[in-house]
Amino acid sequence: MATPIDFYFDFSSPYGYIAAEKIDALAARHGREVRWHPFLLGIAHKVTGGHAPIGVALKDQYYKNDFKRSARFHGVKFRLPSKFPIASVAPSRAFYWLDAKDPARAKELALALYRAFYVDDVDISDPEKVIGVCAKLGLNAEEVRASINNPAIKELFKTEVDRVIARGAFGSPYFIVDDEHFWGVDRLDQIERWLAKGGF
Amino acid sequence: MATPIDFYFDFSSPYGYIAAEKIDALAARHGREVRWHPFLLGIAHKVTGGHAPIGVALKDQYYKNDFKRSARFHGVKFRLPSKFPIASVAPSRAFYWLDAKDPARAKELALALYRAFYVDDVDISDPEKVIGVCAKLGLNAEEVRASINNPAIKELFKTEVDRVIARGAFGSPYFIVDDEHFWGVDRLDQIERWLAKGGF
Repeated sequence: MATPIDFYFDFSSPYGYIAAEKIDALAARHGREVRWHPFLLGIAHKVTGGHAPIGVALKDQYYKNDFKRSARFHGVKFRLPSKFPIASVAPSRAFYWLDAKDPARAKELALALYRAFYVDDVDISDPEKVIGVCAKLGLNAEEVRASINNPAIKELFKTEVDRVIARGAFGSPYFIVDDEHFWGVDRLDQIERWLAKGGF
Repeated sequence: MATPIDFYFDFSSPYGYIAAEKIDALAARHGREVRWHPFLLGIAHKVTGGHAPIGVALKDQYYKNDFKRSARFHGVKFRLPSKFPIASVAPSRAFYWLDAKDPARAKELALALYRAFYVDDVDISDPEKVIGVCAKLGLNAEEVRASINNPAIKELFKTEVDRVIARGAFGSPYFIVDDEHFWGVDRLDQIERWLAKGGF
């Protein structure tokens, strides 16, 4: 089996959400697995001097339209949440807590969290809302609540964020395929060709 | 005939170059013409607080690879010029001088300038190099030299840049199709679907 694809994303990122809906099926078409790594784009931006593409007047309107259009282009449901962008610490900690036990279920949880945020307008920066999404997947609410506040999980997440940034990810979504880096949901077409041809 | 597509680009922009090689054929497949508008991304960046994607350590390496890979993806020849990025005032003025007389030839000139820069490593920020490219197309060297320094052409170009920014372009390439805005050579696929379906 070829090396898994690494997929880096921030739970606040619309393009990360669209990518999350597409990347596993794309990889599977070429016999690849995907490892998911939520991280905090804000920490990466401190390193790169970047910023979220929101809050700059000229670009704001463009991006809000492009989020929706790109979702339609990829056949993914999307609604701009009432509160946006959000801090994504709570959903990320819940992810890593579950990922340590069961990576496949952690992906299901990530998708459920993304859909709660981008389809049902649930504010997943709120730990209680994260717990609610987890409960719907049959996870124990008390266990999730404890995990989000567990110092070991907090530390694990910090370490993961540092590792992601050390690998070079500075945007969301970000992909590493073998040693090739791809940034953006608009690089899915290049990733597909890369996998089909073994590079190009 | 449907409204022409507006195509905005900076002569220093690699993604603008790739788009210049593709946009007219794409538009023609859907019965559309394209109007070309070189502008100065630096002026737009003053408005938006953006910056060229070069000079930030983490991103530098990514972009230099992505320029080349995106060119290969689109089947366009590309070599990172020795001097990059460059000031693009001289090629833009030559473009608008010719555009006022013959828009079709101005496009030919734009492509010749882009190819000189991105294939043959000619520094087109140098007015004499721009004159050399023009001469190869059969344009009169003295006339081009005079036009680059002509106050009326300088003023025309300034007005064009202001108009481009007023329409909302903040990146290169940038496209306006009817009233829909698309930023990036990685939106060509969305533009193609938009033209094919009359929106989506």
